[in-house]
Amino acid sequence: MSKVVTFGEIMLRLSTERFLRFSQAKTFGATYGGGEFNVAVSLNNLGVPAEFVTRLPYNEIGDTALQEIKKLGVGDTHIHRGGDRLGIYFLETGAGTRASNVVYDRAGSSMATVTKGAFDWETIFKGASWFHWSGITPAISEQAALECLEAVKMAKKMGLTISTDLNYRSKLWKWGKEPHEVMPELLKYSNLILGDIDTAYFMLGEPKVQPNYHDEKSLPVLYDKLFKMCPDLKQVATTLRYSVSASHQRIGGILYDGDQIYKAHVQEVTPVVDRVGSGDAFMGGLAYGLIDKPMDKQRAIDIAVASCCLKHTIYGDYNLVSLQDIERFMDGDQTGKVSR
Amino acid sequence: MSKVVTFGEIMLRLSTERFLRFSQAKTFGATYGGGEFNVAVSLNNLGVPAEFVTRLPYNEIGDTALQEIKKLGVGDTHIHRGGDRLGIYFLETGAGTRASNVVYDRAGSSMATVTKGAFDWETIFKGASWFHWSGITPAISEQAALECLEAVKMAKKMGLTISTDLNYRSKLWKWGKEPHEVMPELLKYSNLILGDIDTAYFMLGEPKVQPNYHDEKSLPVLYDKLFKMCPDLKQVATTLRYSVSASHQRIGGILYDGDQIYKAHVQEVTPVVDRVGSGDAFMGGLAYGLIDKPMDKQRAIDIAVASCCLKHTIYGDYNLVSLQDIERFMDGDQTGKVSR
Amino acid sequence: MSKVVTFGEIMLRLSTERFLRFSQAKTFGATYGGGEFNVAVSLNNLGVPAEFVTRLPYNEIGDTALQEIKKLGVGDTHIHRGGDRLGIYFLETGAGTRASNVVYDRAGSSMATVTKGAFDWETIFKGASWFHWSGITPAISEQAALECLEAVKMAKKMGLTISTDLNYRSKLWKWGKEPHEVMPELLKYSNLILGDIDTAYFMLGEPKVQPNYHDEKSLPVLYDKLFKMCPDLKQVATTLRYSVSASHQRIGGILYDGDQIYKAHVQEVTPVVDRVGSGDAFMGGLAYGLIDKPMDKQRAIDIAVASCCLKHTIYGDYNLVSLQDIERFMDGDQTGKVSR
Amino acid sequence: MSKVVTFGEIMLRLSTERFLRFSQAKTFGATYGGGEFNVAVSLNNLGVPAEFVTRLPYNEIGDTALQEIKKLGVGDTHIHRGGDRLGIYFLETGAGTRASNVVYDRAGSSMATVTKGAFDWETIFKGASWFHWSGITPAISEQAALECLEAVKMAKKMGLTISTDLNYRSKLWKWGKEPHEVMPELLKYSNLILGDIDTAYFMLGEPKVQPNYHDEKSLPVLYDKLFKMCPDLKQVATTLRYSVSASHQRIGGILYDGDQIYKAHVQEVTPVVDRVGSGDAFMGGLAYGLIDKPMDKQRAIDIAVASCCLKHTIYGDYNLVSLQDIERFMDGDQTGKVSR
Amino acid sequence: MSKVVTFGEIMLRLSTERFLRFSQAKTFGATYGGGEFNVAVSLNNLGVPAEFVTRLPYNEIGDTALQEIKKLGVGDTHIHRGGDRLGIYFLETGAGTRASNVVYDRAGSSMATVTKGAFDWETIFKGASWFHWSGITPAISEQAALECLEAVKMAKKMGLTISTDLNYRSKLWKWGKEPHEVMPELLKYSNLILGDIDTAYFMLGEPKVQPNYHDEKSLPVLYDKLFKMCPDLKQVATTLRYSVSASHQRIGGILYDGDQIYKAHVQEVTPVVDRVGSGDAFMGGLAYGLIDKPMDKQRAIDIAVASCCLKHTIYGDYNLVSLQDIERFMDGDQTGKVSR
Amino acid sequence: MSKVVTFGEIMLRLSTERFLRFSQAKTFGATYGGGEFNVAVSLNNLGVPAEFVTRLPYNEIGDTALQEIKKLGVGDTHIHRGGDRLGIYFLETGAGTRASNVVYDRAGSSMATVTKGAFDWETIFKGASWFHWSGITPAISEQAALECLEAVKMAKKMGLTISTDLNYRSKLWKWGKEPHEVMPELLKYSNLILGDIDTAYFMLGEPKVQPNYHDEKSLPVLYDKLFKMCPDLKQVATTLRYSVSASHQRIGGILYDGDQIYKAHVQEVTPVVDRVGSGDAFMGGLAYGLIDKPMDKQRAIDIAVASCCLKHTIYGDYNLVSLQDIERFMDGDQTGKVSR
Repeated sequence: MSKVVTFGEIMLRLSTERFLRFSQAKTFGATYGGGEFNVAVSLNNLGVPAEFVTRLPYNEIGDTALQEIKKLGVGDTHIHRGGDRLGIYFLETGAGTRASNVVYDRAGSSMATVTKGAFDWETIFKGASWFHWSGITPAISEQAALECLEAVKMAKKMGLTISTDLNYRSKLWKWGKEPHEVMPELLKYSNLILGDIDTAYFMLGEPKVQPNYHDEKSLPVLYDKLFKMCPDLKQVATTLRYSVSASHQRIGGILYDGDQIYKAHVQEVTPVVDRVGSGDAFMGGLAYGLIDKPMDKQRAIDIAVASCCLKHTIYGDYNLVSLQDIERFMDGDQTGKVSR
Repeated sequence: MSKVVTFGEIMLRLSTERFLRFSQAKTFGATYGGGEFNVAVSLNNLGVPAEFVTRLPYNEIGDTALQEIKKLGVGDTHIHRGGDRLGIYFLETGAGTRASNVVYDRAGSSMATVTKGAFDWETIFKGASWFHWSGITPAISEQAALECLEAVKMAKKMGLTISTDLNYRSKLWKWGKEPHEVMPELLKYSNLILGDIDTAYFMLGEPKVQPNYHDEKSLPVLYDKLFKMCPDLKQVATTLRYSVSASHQRIGGILYDGDQIYKAHVQEVTPVVDRVGSGDAFMGGLAYGLIDKPMDKQRAIDIAVASCCLKHTIYGDYNLVSLQDIERFMDGDQTGKVSR
Repeated sequence: MSKVVTFGEIMLRLSTERFLRFSQAKTFGATYGGGEFNVAVSLNNLGVPAEFVTRLPYNEIGDTALQEIKKLGVGDTHIHRGGDRLGIYFLETGAGTRASNVVYDRAGSSMATVTKGAFDWETIFKGASWFHWSGITPAISEQAALECLEAVKMAKKMGLTISTDLNYRSKLWKWGKEPHEVMPELLKYSNLILGDIDTAYFMLGEPKVQPNYHDEKSLPVLYDKLFKMCPDLKQVATTLRYSVSASHQRIGGILYDGDQIYKAHVQEVTPVVDRVGSGDAFMGGLAYGLIDKPMDKQRAIDIAVASCCLKHTIYGDYNLVSLQDIERFMDGDQTGKVSR
Repeated sequence: MSKVVTFGEIMLRLSTERFLRFSQAKTFGATYGGGEFNVAVSLNNLGVPAEFVTRLPYNEIGDTALQEIKKLGVGDTHIHRGGDRLGIYFLETGAGTRASNVVYDRAGSSMATVTKGAFDWETIFKGASWFHWSGITPAISEQAALECLEAVKMAKKMGLTISTDLNYRSKLWKWGKEPHEVMPELLKYSNLILGDIDTAYFMLGEPKVQPNYHDEKSLPVLYDKLFKMCPDLKQVATTLRYSVSASHQRIGGILYDGDQIYKAHVQEVTPVVDRVGSGDAFMGGLAYGLIDKPMDKQRAIDIAVASCCLKHTIYGDYNLVSLQDIERFMDGDQTGKVSR
Repeated sequence: MSKVVTFGEIMLRLSTERFLRFSQAKTFGATYGGGEFNVAVSLNNLGVPAEFVTRLPYNEIGDTALQEIKKLGVGDTHIHRGGDRLGIYFLETGAGTRASNVVYDRAGSSMATVTKGAFDWETIFKGASWFHWSGITPAISEQAALECLEAVKMAKKMGLTISTDLNYRSKLWKWGKEPHEVMPELLKYSNLILGDIDTAYFMLGEPKVQPNYHDEKSLPVLYDKLFKMCPDLKQVATTLRYSVSASHQRIGGILYDGDQIYKAHVQEVTPVVDRVGSGDAFMGGLAYGLIDKPMDKQRAIDIAVASCCLKHTIYGDYNLVSLQDIERFMDGDQTGKVSR
Repeated sequence: MSKVVTFGEIMLRLSTERFLRFSQAKTFGATYGGGEFNVAVSLNNLGVPAEFVTRLPYNEIGDTALQEIKKLGVGDTHIHRGGDRLGIYFLETGAGTRASNVVYDRAGSSMATVTKGAFDWETIFKGASWFHWSGITPAISEQAALECLEAVKMAKKMGLTISTDLNYRSKLWKWGKEPHEVMPELLKYSNLILGDIDTAYFMLGEPKVQPNYHDEKSLPVLYDKLFKMCPDLKQVATTLRYSVSASHQRIGGILYDGDQIYKAHVQEVTPVVDRVGSGDAFMGGLAYGLIDKPMDKQRAIDIAVASCCLKHTIYGDYNLVSLQDIERFMDGDQTGKVSR
């Protein structure tokens, strides 16, 4: 298979353990993650070679992030070293009726202060057929947004499929521009968008809508507007999450190709070991399905949901599952019988 | 807001971790707690200045308990140092169909051996408007029961609101008297009692009753008798717990003011991270509501239930939640969406 | 009560903690266990003296296993020391839709390489009234299968009751023979078999069947064939597991004595702390019931189910519960109220 | 070899980990120990069957202590169950210039409240040739002191060798009598005393002395007085400790048999992993030596020192070393080469 | 005693445990510290009321730092809340020949972005007699340096004693000015300076010197120059460190009052549990001595050294020792005998 | 630089933590290592591309070992997957006078059961200039010894430098032949041998010698005999270890090139964090020095000793140090000053 390239920030994640609140923590679990990197890991675990492009500081924390990337088998050839610090996010894992809480500490990170010329996109995209980015990168800083634009332009020029996870984060977008001032220019190159319909409208500067995902027939009209605004768009997908509590989710998904709606069955997910990165697992599963068998869209959305569900059972940001794990899930073996 | 004073014992809590049974534990988690202290913490977290009155030994374990009190911002000005040991309780946290188990080791504690004159209640109550005690203190020892009486008498004299959590513990009350020989004298000063109706009857030496909390109309008659026996009583509240398993609770609550029943919706609580102290969180929430808006009794009982539910998700004895957390819960946001 | 003897392998169990996948583990929890040993522990905890017969290597890992046996109060008088290594199994504990996974590393273990004469069964069985073995032992190696045959022959000769848990493990049976070439010879001495009907047919070399446990009337015909094939058979039992997920089980059980079906109510088990050894807890409970009150078969199967359910809440391979815990469970107190 | 019986209290030990101060500890390591039990473990590890006599409460903490005794292979046949609580001691492990600190919490323990008739010494001593007790037991309570007297009288009557470790603890002896009012009556039955000369004089109510252990010739005069006061005394031993810091000790030892001084070489011990119980390891080694080869007194004192040194490298109260470990040490192999 | 005020940054400290390198860490120990806060803790533990002035962000990490300050009993009345983030430093604790390594991540911290008016120094200094700051604060940012100047000016005006620890950190001072452009203006208000002579010369812009601390007679000339440059200077002190390895230090100290040299004995410190903050412990001990008995300068420098030595045995940034601990050390009891 | 290839077994290492004995361990630290892999890691960290050749089982434990290799940046292109299990070794880390203890559990490992054709040495050695193997590989099994021979023959044919660490392990060599029956044939291809002189003589079947490394003049005669027996030998090196205790080592080293002795200064190493792999760190440092500057042999042996010393401060099998760390050490900065 030809290579997928993802571009974004990888952060040090510091999480409290055993559901402790921040004020109770005497230790933090130290892992690494970031939306676009998580997608790369998912793809790589499913057998698609993935390359991650980011910027890491020249210090021991940056070195350790790099070792993590290598360990997971994701390509690191084009990572740029420079800048002052690795972004951090603190995670307090919730349970039951108490939600998880994220405190971002990523201002001034190496990725946020990326400078022009750090990445030679023409070289990076050689041998690649797919490029993935998310709405987090342009939310970090103006420079990151500009670099994102460079990337999508070159990706289009070189004929790569471009996928985008909208990933709206209200605690970001502090650098002076609103999403609707930045995202339309970027999204017009996207061939696949993952996101809620209302988020898409919001980022594109359109009036607010309240989609009813239970009423499938009402959706094409709403999706179609996105196709009009994003000329290269071929498919839109949405993760359906029905949260019962921080420990209990119901996960489904929709894929629309401008012609037809493909919907996956809603699955029960309880208990939740770690919810962070489950959207990225959805994205990774979806991209895998569309790369592996582009015509079998039902399978693609089913894989996306299976991947998303399994992620909830795994500690850390990324989805450490194999294709075999996903197939077993889709075959209905979700009963947790011990394999021995 | 004027100050709340609570009086009782704070213990070292030694709990097995990750659901281990006592015989499997190679380490114990070391935290601190006790019913009346837990109420003080709850109130303080909700913005009501709280002062905790207790007796701590002059050793390093007593010092550490004192640091914990300071850390949580609870007033420690009137704590008496003396006696031989800090009370201990061992906790084996259950799961599913296996209940949690408590082994008390509090005999001979500094609080149990409190001597007359340790506390100058007149000074302590200056600037305070509310006094809270529970049925655990008179259960520990004769001296503790006597000191409790001193306190409620002075509290009444100085015009404080007096609240009491009945907190019956069958493993205590070993010092020679039965609850009904001690509690009536103490409860006659109470303005607010929290407890099951049958427990109240039992402690007041009345014949056994079997209240049906589902039948609201049957309750006033039962509650009214308490008002008769406790002349200062203004309000009675009961926590409604429908235990499905050690990991799954359903929590509701009732408040009766001699005139009207206020009932909160029953909430699902699963999984349970730590059940100990959830009654104290109820009490803390209730007192907060009645102090903050004395007339809005429905809100008070709703806050009590929300506070109780959230406590179940928090490790340790006390309810580390803010008013904002409680309001978010009452607004229906119990879905555990990550805040980011 | 007279003694029960169980015979089999005890292994070092290395399990990932907090639901980590193997690739995430920096430490392994080190415990010990094995089907037949787990049964001995269950019986001992319920008050029946149990003796465990196995073979342990002469190294520090074997010494530690021996200390574990002593700690639990199980008899160790006839354990043979020799061979090269203690068998190991790696356990990745699943959650929700992700199943637990076992990696066996028991080839060449002291038990697998047992040599003739290691055990003097006549001496071992003195003073014993019951012998238990499982289908794991003959699955390990030819020598182990032969030793098993020695044991059952002597047990029959000396008049012991013989119980067998079929315990089919697809990852074992690698030594050259299929179950149906080995098990019939062994099972003909069994007085009590625990196992699924289809597993029993498979091991006895009979054509495949698909029993419907919901249709009680259909079962005697299927069970009766086992009685025909195993001339000493008096009773057959089956654990009924309805897995919802790795974290949620529904557990029931059936006992058939050639005459009548005894069925226990299905119980909810959620969350699952540790599923491994729950079948052995069922077996231990069943044997206890049949030893304690042989005529009360309904009670025996009820105890088996209660024991199995409680095991799911306990970390490690064995069921650390007392008779009091089981009786409390059977009396319906599964609500997890804190005992204090 | 015939059996050794030791009599005393076993406590739950709660120690801070990684050199934390009490106020920093969020967990306590939970182990068990007590002077006389530690001696039993040492002897048992060296191949001498040892029986431990104590009193344990009927609760889960008492049960766990009992499992620990079983695990270590020490005889538990005559343990009495009763009383309210297991004694506790808190340990803050020091390092370098900061000393370790012990906080005792053993008042009211099952052992301290032992009642007449709990132990049938005649039965207990059947088949035993040696009885060991220490100065801690009479320091706990009057009842414990009385029981100790019962024991030594019967031991003498039945012809056992009686050894005593003086073990003076300034934080004990709170029950109303001074050591010199109690110990002389008890020590007159001792055949072997382990302790500093000044401690022995103090406990026997003699004027203070300042022995100079470097001047061997000066010692017999001082020791001889003990022989006069304790008519059954045959041998006296003293552990020589030259503390450089909490992490660095120098350990030697002296044995005097009324005729000759036997002195062991001083050994360097650094770093110290855990110092508690090193005196008991000395006692255990000495008793082993005198039981194994009564005539070879030089070997006995050498084993005592080796055992004491090795104990410093082991976490917990007791000396988990084999005879082989000790012999390797005495052969001069203290270089810590990896055995592989 | 009247109050001491210290001003500076408190950071989240994330340290690898058990001597792991950064790349091996799966968890970080989370504590808090900073030079000036550490001094406040030391003083408070020795009985001098201390107030800490800093700026903390309005997020959960800032809240937790505040709870830590409260726990330690340090005054927090004048802490300003604002800014974006709490500064962080990563610590890899070395051992033997491998040095500890610090990675600073404090750019853009709340303290670095302090704005004019955050602190009302006149109010803050009411009731205080001593103000302490260090060379770290002006090294962080221009705003922090300016605020430092405001503070020392007001402190002088209000008659407080002003002490300064030079604390040169080569990894800081990145904001555009060199130490010699900033420090002279600040140091001219100092009454007591702690630091190496060469560091003082460097910060004051003087030519490099190489003091020989072994040659006491050569020092007054060098120190006197500082008195000339800093008109308010009354005393200068220097910590003498002779590092053998990361695990073995030799610690001494010098105090010069313009007239006489006071020198403390060099003490051995091995093993080192945690070296960070040992200079602050020295400063805290010195200030305590000079506040408690201003005339006994030899005692002051002896306390400083004792405090510094003991700090090396304590995990975390601050010196959790009491006056009693220090006095025991100075009395020569460094042998680490267990206190029991 | 051109590539180095090393060939050998990588094992799962299960070590007790905090100096616990095996019988005390409830968890094992899980890391990976093996002599030849450790050399590859050392070289890679120093900037020499290294490729590791081994055989790993197709299971999750094998997968995890592979991720570890990737994480460390060592080449994994030619690793063969197959066989049944990953070898294991258990490590009990000693302290002071108690030595570390290794229990091997590597029989039947994937590497021990390697089959002909698993490795295509001609392809493997393309682009490589150096091949390293050790005496452990032929000690595992006959197949492994044969594969080793294949490798050295091809390495010689293709002109690689061949280095060998003798690494004698008395607990291995169980497959039927003695070292002197196997090693001479292999060692005749070696250009560089690392080992004690007496070990070399023993492995080559020569009469026992007792070299005196303090008498440099006596060594050439002893070394020269090795040159005669191994025709391709160019250099011999020996690690000099003077063990004071398990926690304190003195490390030196000798290199002899047939003409001249190069000796490194002996360095103090205390405390020892982890001694395992320190010989491999020596080998890695030596090879680096000889590759980087072949003529500067004094520097090579100095780097070897520095590398070996630093390894003792690092947990796990391999030497996680950079060239900068080593140069700092050689420049005499061993004082452990915090870098900040």
